[in-house]
Amino acid sequence: MAGIFQRSVKLRTVLRHQRLHRTFSSRKTARLSAVGLCGSFHKLPSGSWQFGATCQKLHTVADGPKPSAAEAPDRLPFSRVTQEDLAFFRKTLLGRAITDSDFLESSNVDWLKSVKGSSEVLLRPQNTKEVSQVLRYCNSRNLAVTPQGGNTGLVGGSVPVYDEIILSTALMNNILAFDNISGILTCQAGCVLENLSLYLEERDYIMPLDLGAKGSCQIGGNVATNAGGLRLLRYGSLHGTVLGLEVVLADGRVLDCLSTLRKDNTGYDLKQLFIGSEGTLGVITAVSILCPRKPKSVNLVFLGCETFEQLLKTFQLCRGMLGEILSAFEFLDSECMRLLNTHLKLPNPISDCPFYIVIETSGSNPTHDGQKLHNFLEEAMTSSLVTDGTVATEESKIKALWSMRERITEALTHDGFNYKYDISLPVERIYQLVTDMREHLGDQAKSVVGYGHIGDGNLHLNITSPAKDPALLGAIEPFVYEWTARCKGSISAEHGLGLKKRNYIYYSKSSQAVALMGNIKAILDPKGILNPYKTLPDALK
Amino acid sequence: MAGIFQRSVKLRTVLRHQRLHRTFSSRKTARLSAVGLCGSFHKLPSGSWQFGATCQKLHTVADGPKPSAAEAPDRLPFSRVTQEDLAFFRKTLLGRAITDSDFLESSNVDWLKSVKGSSEVLLRPQNTKEVSQVLRYCNSRNLAVTPQGGNTGLVGGSVPVYDEIILSTALMNNILAFDNISGILTCQAGCVLENLSLYLEERDYIMPLDLGAKGSCQIGGNVATNAGGLRLLRYGSLHGTVLGLEVVLADGRVLDCLSTLRKDNTGYDLKQLFIGSEGTLGVITAVSILCPRKPKSVNLVFLGCETFEQLLKTFQLCRGMLGEILSAFEFLDSECMRLLNTHLKLPNPISDCPFYIVIETSGSNPTHDGQKLHNFLEEAMTSSLVTDGTVATEESKIKALWSMRERITEALTHDGFNYKYDISLPVERIYQLVTDMREHLGDQAKSVVGYGHIGDGNLHLNITSPAKDPALLGAIEPFVYEWTARCKGSISAEHGLGLKKRNYIYYSKSSQAVALMGNIKAILDPKGILNPYKTLPDALK
Repeated sequence: MAGIFQRSVKLRTVLRHQRLHRTFSSRKTARLSAVGLCGSFHKLPSGSWQFGATCQKLHTVADGPKPSAAEAPDRLPFSRVTQEDLAFFRKTLLGRAITDSDFLESSNVDWLKSVKGSSEVLLRPQNTKEVSQVLRYCNSRNLAVTPQGGNTGLVGGSVPVYDEIILSTALMNNILAFDNISGILTCQAGCVLENLSLYLEERDYIMPLDLGAKGSCQIGGNVATNAGGLRLLRYGSLHGTVLGLEVVLADGRVLDCLSTLRKDNTGYDLKQLFIGSEGTLGVITAVSILCPRKPKSVNLVFLGCETFEQLLKTFQLCRGMLGEILSAFEFLDSECMRLLNTHLKLPNPISDCPFYIVIETSGSNPTHDGQKLHNFLEEAMTSSLVTDGTVATEESKIKALWSMRERITEALTHDGFNYKYDISLPVERIYQLVTDMREHLGDQAKSVVGYGHIGDGNLHLNITSPAKDPALLGAIEPFVYEWTARCKGSISAEHGLGLKKRNYIYYSKSSQAVALMGNIKAILDPKGILNPYKTLPDALK
Repeated sequence: MAGIFQRSVKLRTVLRHQRLHRTFSSRKTARLSAVGLCGSFHKLPSGSWQFGATCQKLHTVADGPKPSAAEAPDRLPFSRVTQEDLAFFRKTLLGRAITDSDFLESSNVDWLKSVKGSSEVLLRPQNTKEVSQVLRYCNSRNLAVTPQGGNTGLVGGSVPVYDEIILSTALMNNILAFDNISGILTCQAGCVLENLSLYLEERDYIMPLDLGAKGSCQIGGNVATNAGGLRLLRYGSLHGTVLGLEVVLADGRVLDCLSTLRKDNTGYDLKQLFIGSEGTLGVITAVSILCPRKPKSVNLVFLGCETFEQLLKTFQLCRGMLGEILSAFEFLDSECMRLLNTHLKLPNPISDCPFYIVIETSGSNPTHDGQKLHNFLEEAMTSSLVTDGTVATEESKIKALWSMRERITEALTHDGFNYKYDISLPVERIYQLVTDMREHLGDQAKSVVGYGHIGDGNLHLNITSPAKDPALLGAIEPFVYEWTARCKGSISAEHGLGLKKRNYIYYSKSSQAVALMGNIKAILDPKGILNPYKTLPDALK
């Protein structure tokens, strides 16, 4: 503690010298939650899909005659749930086959309230055997199934499009094992990310991923969508940290790849296929994951920059001077700050700037970390890369500062109808897309904001309008996708494709690659019952 | 430098206090090389394989009537290379279709000289287009192909079994791009790992992997075999660090997944399939990989322990106290030390102990790193976890100490015929296997040694005998595999399965998983021309 105190004094001196001020909010970080939001739904139009012929429409076009490629194709010829089916589910799941419409309401709609299905049954298995029994039955009956975790996704991947059966992992929430020497956690898919974090923190470890939706999202959904989040810069992607998966395939077979080994080169690494497959290849029922030690010291810095170029130079300086203790480097622009001020009444902790940076350090020695941070801040301010800033070392203040980054999504929902884009780009091009989009849209949009994970080259571009606006959408797309493709970027860095982005896959993947994905889908789910209308495009090129 | 000096003094004081001495060798680390070794070959016997019927035998059983499951099945009914085929290759590759027997000699045999093929043509394409032309032709002609990188593998995966055409990536050795902001390197598959390391070090970065064979092995082969090595503890596996691959499929189609983005969730992550597939699913022609910053400070510590339990406690202490700067934690036993002394004349840098530990730290601040190391060593010695040790901070001394770990493979080759096992286990069980094996074999073996990557739970168990000894092999196998399977370990942690271990896959993978691997092979290489007789078992359960 003496080290922290000493460091705080030093930093304060430096900051005062540079006319920085320390103004912390004591508000707690809000968590995203799928419960309690409301809004309007759009209905879903026609098209064709690769796994079957067109069928009876349940939804019609709501906004004009020309459907967007994001909207759903016609319902495929899956069976409809009968009384006999319900009897089987009720017998198998004993009180956990839900048909109550109030309960179904929240499971049928996504967190953004942008996609709504009309499923009439929600199944809540408690273990792998039950998942296997359900899927074997559904496959034999040609009943479509939408696996659902915390339902916090942003691309309409976790809700039914029509009457698909919802298979929730919420009751599969047991921790199966934790090895305190290796840091390897094994748990059921339905464990909520924040609960796992709390469990591990008591044992001096942390989860290798963290994201705004942690209070609701489940580890199975995180893996199925290859969630990125705030710690990817430091601990890497789930393709590296997930060591094993148990997956139930479409026909009910259980694929046991639930290894708890750091290294295993015996044949093809099949579990990788399911990481990021959005529930279209199998239902993840258990996960083993390598967890890092809990850092003994965490610091958060909130800085202001005059230009995006200075922000990038600050990133470079930071990587060199903070080195192995850098655990996050995030940014938001002044438009994000305006929305946080306006809609959530969160005041700017520093003076107004065009760009803001959130830097987190996590290390094993508070004194060393403080010294590294001090040296970095001194250099960043002396060389005029940053113009204002504030530092937090106490947990409540760290949470308050993090909320300036984590609550942007929430602030946006209060600004109007959201058009959300989650783009990977070479880091030096990231903000040019925001600038170009603003110029391109002119007065058509209410707000055009950019924020995201600089360290991962990941921009969250969001555009709002007072209400849903097909003309605005026509101006945004395909402009945003073409711009991204020209820079060899990805049109979905971490959100996945789900329902909304499935037909834009060709902007980031070759037709050879997409065709091969189709082949893999056909092997694992020949009837296409698992999460139909998601991830893969309606038609292969 | 003042920091280093100060630290050295401090450490020396501590070490003297604990009766540790500093005795460094100035010898340079030797590199493994495929050139210049000699030994005897065993010929390969009969069996059946999943992709075709049995055919004319080129090899016969050398050692008794009962073939081991490691030995090769009968030749499959691939076409034989004709004069027309050679004419095509010569026209396509212009002087790089080699039929000279001297040149072919070293490409037909593996580094251990344990497997020898009889290929009559070696193809050396320079670019992806040429690889594509060659494979399209071979696929249409039903000619089998063995892709070959640096040919440093230990399981017979990189050499032909019969007359397969050898497709070498050695001339595809260009660096295509390096982004100095993101640290993302893009290069052709044939770049030698050490050359990439040297290129990056000049630019203040390093490769995320390092292994003893770095002077010969190629990045394409590293990826194809999912090489682990000495830095995995810190930077994770290639499943996390490889960002993109370009792969030529069996029929000549080029699969472009050569993304240079840290995040890309547009569809299934196909490149993962090829990482660790040992050239059986496609030929990797280019790689993009995320490279860490070059550490500003590296220290190496060589310690001695009385028991394996103390070694494990030292590991736990080390993870807590060195935290984010720990970059390797390796071990060797006293039998390894004896072989290094005897066969390579490498003296023990400390006093004799039952177990030795090699710890590497890599960080951004020499003073901080030195302090952390000092604190750790003080604690380890005060609590009597370690009994002797030596520290190196200068590059030449670091290399000399590393050679005690890196040259064990070389020392083993001088001890007789090698039976090599590369096992993943829960870390607390690792050495029990060595002890049990010694007891089990009694006087049958010449040496039974254990070393490896404690931090990754990876044991290299090696057994030697004066000459190849079927009775000894019968005593080792399936004992070693059954022992490993009982602990839910992996029978190949990082070496892969290749020819030698293919039939042991079921000790670590379920029949469901292996069947799915077979399905994926059938999609990508329906004629089975790519690296036949490797990775997958002869018969599916």
